Amino acid sequence: MTGQRVKSKPKVRVRIKLAIGAHTLGPGKAQLLKNIQATGSISAAAREMGIHYRRAWFLLDTLNEALGRPVVETTKGGARGGGAELTEAGRALLAAYEQAVETAEKATRPGLEKFGRMISDN
Amino acid sequence: MTGQRVKSKPKVRVRIKLAIGAHTLGPGKAQLLKNIQATGSISAAAREMGIHYRRAWFLLDTLNEALGRPVVETTKGGARGGGAELTEAGRALLAAYEQAVETAEKATRPGLEKFGRMISDN
Repeated sequence: MTGQRVKSKPKVRVRIKLAIGAHTLGPGKAQLLKNIQATGSISAAAREMGIHYRRAWFLLDTLNEALGRPVVETTKGGARGGGAELTEAGRALLAAYEQAVETAEKATRPGLEKFGRMISDN
Repeated sequence: MTGQRVKSKPKVRVRIKLAIGAHTLGPGKAQLLKNIQATGSISAAAREMGIHYRRAWFLLDTLNEALGRPVVETTKGGARGGGAELTEAGRALLAAYEQAVETAEKATRPGLEKFGRMISDN
């Protein structure tokens, strides 16, 4: 215990995951879905996160299993040499996650700010 | 994709952690604090969770660091050969966590139930 420590202001935040059956969706997989939506490509989405294409597929597969249907749809050929987009289920999953994060952060903020002040003031 | 899968009803729930500065408090550490409160002993609390005493101390130390003060107070000697109890900061941390879990679960429930029905019905 040091004086500086006690006076510091640790920011207290809530972190959210969704548990769907035995599977989870947290910030990493949510980012992957967002990147696929933005880039139209699983390999580009993976590259942006610094993960391997195969790792991205593995993560997507856990979500496919969680929902019992694919979250991403791939197309072969075409001008861009094939691409990927979120299915309706994938978009709904991402939306449900983003809404849960926003809702939980908003609902817990007053209590956590109060706690943050308490541990900063003493 | 199988017919059974699509018809199954994956329960969608929110999972909560608190992030305090660079540290986190999730269900495991919260359970440890609760066990200490209930047993008055770090070793008994650790035993109930099937973790080593040293592991329990390590987890408590991350919380001490997060708050800049101890979350547990130990006493030596006495009838029970020494014991442990949560400090005011430890109790406040546990309460803040439990309140955040309850608040976040309640706030996100309608949206997640709606999503759960959506992925169960189609």
